[in-house]
Amino acid sequence: MRKLSQGYHYLIEFYGCEYSQINSKRDIDTILSSSLDNRKIKILRKFFYKFKPRGVTGFLLLSASHISIHTWPEKNYAAVDIFTCIKKEETKKIIASITKKISHKNRNIALYKRGFLTNNSE
Amino acid sequence: MRKLSQGYHYLIEFYGCEYSQINSKRDIDTILSSSLDNRKIKILRKFFYKFKPRGVTGFLLLSASHISIHTWPEKNYAAVDIFTCIKKEETKKIIASITKKISHKNRNIALYKRGFLTNNSE
Repeated sequence: MRKLSQGYHYLIEFYGCEYSQINSKRDIDTILSSSLDNRKIKILRKFFYKFKPRGVTGFLLLSASHISIHTWPEKNYAAVDIFTCIKKEETKKIIASITKKISHKNRNIALYKRGFLTNNSE
Repeated sequence: MRKLSQGYHYLIEFYGCEYSQINSKRDIDTILSSSLDNRKIKILRKFFYKFKPRGVTGFLLLSASHISIHTWPEKNYAAVDIFTCIKKEETKKIIASITKKISHKNRNIALYKRGFLTNNSE
């Protein structure tokens, strides 16, 4: 019996975003993908989708979990999730990169530790 | 200035899972994909990946947000996320379907409402 601790899950809300930026599939792809430059994480697969008339949704499935995004340009709002199993400091660098590149007025971050429950099955 | 409320994000932990089931890419795909049968949600794209020596990770990008999974068979643990913009009752049916099909001993669910912050940008 022991404590599990499998990963850190950051739920990030960006408010006051720029309509055109978060309505661009290309911009969103660039922002998220470049946040992994020089990191030790491999992108297994990525996919972005542009809704009509507006909105972008996408995900990067990583060797160490995932990054996802859903945007509501008409509300200048974007929801970003980062779920990683790498070191917290490394994850913070990814978040800092995304935060720097997404134009926004306010940001809210919640951290949820995944797998924290005493595991009686072992 | 008003309250935003863009979606419900369920963070689900399954403990005491069956090693072979959560180590099977095919089983995981079937469990998650079939949870959307008869629902009004379209799968835009799905992707599952089997790690060596073990573990499965996967993503279903939906017309109304996403479902993700990451499994640690050696710890009998699976982390499932469901982020939807559909009615709460509909989402609960999806969760019930997944819960019924993933063999497990304990489950923990946290609900996080996304986009709940007073938006000063409008």
